[in-house]
Order: sequence, then structure tokens, then C-alpha cells
Amino acid sequence: MTDTPSGSRTLEVALGSRSYPIHIGPGLLGTPAALAPWLAGRQVMIVTNATVAPLYLERCRAALPADAEVRELVLPDGEATKTLEHVSRIWDALLEAGFNRRCTLVALGGGVIGDMVGFAAACYQRGVAFIQVPTTLLAQVDSSVGGKTGVNHPLGKNMIGAFWQPRAVLIDTDTLATLPARELSAGLAEVIKYGLIRDADFLAWLERSLPELRALEPAALAHAIERSCALKAEIVAADETEQGVRALLNLGHTFGHAIEAHQGYGAWLHGEAVGAGMLMAAELSARLGWLASADVDRVEALLEAAALPTAAPAAMGVEDFLARMRLDKKNIDSRLRLVLLRALGAACVHDATPEATLRELLEHFPRG
Amino acid sequence: MTDTPSGSRTLEVALGSRSYPIHIGPGLLGTPAALAPWLAGRQVMIVTNATVAPLYLERCRAALPADAEVRELVLPDGEATKTLEHVSRIWDALLEAGFNRRCTLVALGGGVIGDMVGFAAACYQRGVAFIQVPTTLLAQVDSSVGGKTGVNHPLGKNMIGAFWQPRAVLIDTDTLATLPARELSAGLAEVIKYGLIRDADFLAWLERSLPELRALEPAALAHAIERSCALKAEIVAADETEQGVRALLNLGHTFGHAIEAHQGYGAWLHGEAVGAGMLMAAELSARLGWLASADVDRVEALLEAAALPTAAPAAMGVEDFLARMRLDKKNIDSRLRLVLLRALGAACVHDATPEATLRELLEHFPRG
Repeated sequence: MTDTPSGSRTLEVALGSRSYPIHIGPGLLGTPAALAPWLAGRQVMIVTNATVAPLYLERCRAALPADAEVRELVLPDGEATKTLEHVSRIWDALLEAGFNRRCTLVALGGGVIGDMVGFAAACYQRGVAFIQVPTTLLAQVDSSVGGKTGVNHPLGKNMIGAFWQPRAVLIDTDTLATLPARELSAGLAEVIKYGLIRDADFLAWLERSLPELRALEPAALAHAIERSCALKAEIVAADETEQGVRALLNLGHTFGHAIEAHQGYGAWLHGEAVGAGMLMAAELSARLGWLASADVDRVEALLEAAALPTAAPAAMGVEDFLARMRLDKKNIDSRLRLVLLRALGAACVHDATPEATLRELLEHFPRG
Repeated sequence: MTDTPSGSRTLEVALGSRSYPIHIGPGLLGTPAALAPWLAGRQVMIVTNATVAPLYLERCRAALPADAEVRELVLPDGEATKTLEHVSRIWDALLEAGFNRRCTLVALGGGVIGDMVGFAAACYQRGVAFIQVPTTLLAQVDSSVGGKTGVNHPLGKNMIGAFWQPRAVLIDTDTLATLPARELSAGLAEVIKYGLIRDADFLAWLERSLPELRALEPAALAHAIERSCALKAEIVAADETEQGVRALLNLGHTFGHAIEAHQGYGAWLHGEAVGAGMLMAAELSARLGWLASADVDRVEALLEAAALPTAAPAAMGVEDFLARMRLDKKNIDSRLRLVLLRALGAACVHDATPEATLRELLEHFPRG
């Protein structure tokens, strides 16, 4: 991490020849030619969605050098756009513009835009450059690191895709000013997750700093994003192929996915379900004797400070949870595998939770 | 290269952690469990086309272990199928079968099937295993090496794709028994090309052995295929990103593409156009003082022995050639770049052919 005079900071994601920088700070998109160092050539296509375009497309264009040959493509907003058909529209636009292998795609938007544009770049003429400009907190702390790109299929989420690294990630914290409060909270759930998994100091900092984060104080935002990306980068570097330690990134996700699926996707935001799911994981860890009840209280207080749910859906019964959880991809040979907490800041994968203990948790966990 | 007791041979394509073997020989598909060593897990999908399926699908199935969970998908035949829509059909079939990340795709067919199945494997769940079982000579000596996969777009050939290496390539020379003679000749054009580019000894061997090759003599076929794959592998290893020496693989292609495009794709087979194109490149090299006329005669005799054309299309004028050649991707700053021959077995890229010399060649080259 390096601090620059302007107050922005840069984190290097170390992936050998595919290493790239993440720049974080306020006003980055306003900076003339801020994107110039990472362009493969003069041809640039900015891909964004109909919600983000009126807010930030002009500022993004201003961050390109004056001699760039810039095209723009505005797709509809929402998870429903994350399809092969919409990625094909990107390819159509690139070919109609006559763009060659030295073109650069710029993904301006949230996770859906980032995933689609990254996949379009991975497969256009067998691979061209792309730059991520994430405009939601969730995309800034999650999809900035890891190189996962792709689209949904009617039979499954993220089923078609590629690993493809960006040339750079530019995170302008000013873009969070227009993010709905509920989406900011959902992004904070992932930030809290990184602290719970492997950084007790960061967790303590979050406890002190959540008011500043919710007030969008630039230095606090930049630190939270930088630390989250750094923690994710460490985990991904240790396990690029998702065989071991990378599973820890799923803290709260087994419970959370059960909530999302039971409520119908979109009713709860992903981060909201993960928030409640992390508290459930903490309580289960306490029932296994690993956490003190004071630790669980700290998790609950953090979630409350982030305006995240601390109860499961009112109508969701024990069997509703168990049925969904048994379908989890992490399970091996029908043995339930959960990411739990040995301590705050120290997650582990555990596959020997007694069913009675899990049932007790599910019975007693508050519904709201 | 290693010889095995059964008369088959194995060539290793050296690509670090992505290295893989090419097995070449008669009767490989008849061998029980011949494909077993390279399966990622029990789930296997064989993808082929309607022409190849009745001939070799059963034999391919027999080469899988008895406990494999095998699905089959038969696509229509022909270059027109090489679209994203048909690759989507492969993804649909994989998801409908509930296939996971440890599945293996088997591409049974010519270059179109190989390119599509390789691309489907590259992007299914961000990358699964695949095995090439090429059944045309062209696919055996061309797409077996290089890792290029992809599909056509209405605005350009091979515009959408990925670099993705197979786990193994299994070349059963018996499959050439059912290949139409014209397609066998088209494949031989690429075999001759490898000799002309960088192996004078192989070229001399081809001059002696073309009758055996056209008679499908297994040992001669296996040697020709092995040597072609080895030569291509050397070139690709030296220039994986296609910046320099890999351009030599385009010997005959600038003239050939002009013929294909002028006649309408499909009227001349690609290998036929490359055959005539290589003779044009040899004659131009002679006009530049690099080849003796006896060298050009040897090239012509080789093409004749392979039943390939030694004349350009009757109705194709000098301007028809020049207009198409100016569009070639190899050109830089509108300077015509051609792959020519310094000697038989020693190709080079040359961008200083005087226009008058090129025009003389185009005027005097025979039309047929």
C-alpha cells in the first residue's frame, strides 16, 4: 500500500505476470487521463448500465486521454441482464466499431457489469485488456480481486465464465455518494466479513469507524476498501484454484444462501443475507465453545451499526434452513461443511457440527 | 517422441503446467479405456457432428472406462455451425446433465468441432477438462497444437474464443479411411507447409512418401502427423502470443485467403487455396532470387503428388488478388507483409517486395 499526495492509495494484487494495481480514493474519475497508463492502445469501449451512465459516464470519459477512440455501450441495469445475450451485445458493438486485439474495455458499474465486461474481454479475439471501475461498495471490495468473470445461465448462477484479470482497478470513493443506503450496508457486510475471517485489528477499527463509513468519510472508506481488497488478495493468492482456504470467503454464506433462496432472490440483498448468516455462524461457534458470548455480542453490534439484519426471516423454519443448507456446494459426500469462527479474526472450515447443535441454533436464533 | 509396442507414437507438447501428450497411431479408438488417463472425473460428454457420429461415436465410447457417466451431443456438420448458439447448446446439455467442474468434454470430429468444444470447455464453470479426438487430417496437424478455441461471428471468423489447452490429443489414423479424398489432400497441404517452413529433411521424406500417405499407410501417416505437430509445437512454444515467428505458419495464406474470399468461402477448400498460395509464394521467392527454379519445380511436383491445385482460379485477375491481399491482418501501416521462402525449409516474413515484382508474378502465374 502506498499513499499518494492526493490522498488516494494503491494496492498491488500480486499474480506474477498478471499482477495489477487497485487505486482507491476520492475524485479519481475526475482526474484527466487517470485511466491512460493501462490502455492497451487507442481503442476504448466503456460499458455501463442505464442507472450508472447518467451519473458517471461523463466523468469516466474525462479520465481517458484526449486522443483515445472512445465508444460507449449502455446496458440495462440488474442481475437479469447478466446473460450471454448481453455479453454478445458487447461483442457485436466491438466488431461493429472495428476494434482489434489492442482495444481496452472499461467496466463502469457494479458487480454485474464487472462480471459481464470481464467475460467479454476474456473472449474477444481470445482475450483483450480491461479495466474495472466499480461503483458499488460490494463490487469494490469483492469483484476487484479474484479475476472471476462470467454470466448466469437459466440453470445456474455464474455457470459460464472465465478467470481473467483486469489491467487495473480504479475505485473512486466519490461514486458511493449516489449508492442507495441499503446497498451501502450490503457492501459493509462483506467488509465486516474480511475482518471476522482473518483480521481482528481491522475488526476493532471497523467497530470504531462504522459511523464515518456510513457518513462516506473518504479516508475511512479508502482504508476499509484497501484493507478488504488486501485481505481477499492474500486469500486468493494462497488458493487461486479454490480448493482450500478460499472457502473461508464463504463465511455466513451457507446460512445466507438459504435465506436468499427461501425468500426468493432479490427480496433480501446478498449482503443482508450474509450479514444475518455471519451472526448465525458466530452463534453456532459459541455453541461449539469457540466464541464467548461477548464475542457474539460484538458481531451483533457491528451488524446493527452497519444497519444490517440481525434476525432471520420471520417465516423461515428450522427445516427450511436444513433443506437448503444440504444443497450447499461446499458439502462433500453429503457431510455439511460450514465456515465457522475459532475466534474473532480466525475463521475455519468445519464439517463435524452435531446435527442437534445446529438444530438448537436454528430453533433459538431470532426471527424478525 | 516415443514408439510404443502397438506402433503408435506419443509427442509431448511442452507448455509448463499445461503440457499434454498427442498420441498418434492406428486403432487407438478401438482400445478399451484409451481415454481413461486424462479424464478429470467420471462425468464425460462426447460432442461430435452428424457426419462423424455414425462412423466413430461408438468406437469413441468404447475408449472410455466402463464406470464413466457418458453423455453424447450430436451437432450439425459444417463451418456454419461454428457459432455461439451451438456452443450454448453444449452448455445447456452440460447443465441439464448436472455436470460439475470435474467433468471432461471429448471433441470428436474435425476443426469446427474441436474449436467449439474447446471453447465450451474453456468457459463452462470457468474452465473444465477436454480431450481432442480429431478425425480429419487438417484437424490432426493443425488444431491439435496451439490451444486456439472459438467461434465465428457474423462480422468475422474466430472473433470470439479463448486459449485453452486440451488434457490430451488422441489421433486415430484409422479415422482417415472415411475422409473424402479432397479433404485428405487439403490436410496434406498443411503437412507440406510445415516442411517448407522449417524442415528440408521432412520435405524430402514427403517427396518420397506421398504415395503411401495417399494410400493411408498407417506408419507413414503417423510419421507425417507426428512431424507436423512437432514442428507446429516448436513454433508455438517460441511465440505463444503470435507476435513474431508464429506468422510463418501463414505461408501460402495471404494468396490463399485472397482465393478463398474471391471464390466465396467453401468453393475452394482452405487447404486447396493454401496449396496454390504456397506455390505462388515459392515463385515469388524465385523472382526475388532466393529460390532456384528447380526448387519451385519441387514444390509444384509435391502439390501435384498430393492432388492439390497448382494454378489460381481461371477468372481471378491481378487486381482481384491485390485488393484482397491489401486487407491481410499481417500488414502493418499498409505495407504488404508476405511469408516467403529463403530456401526450401526456411521461411521468412518479408515486407519489401517491389510491387512490380508482385504484379509480374500475379500476371504470369498459371490460371486453371
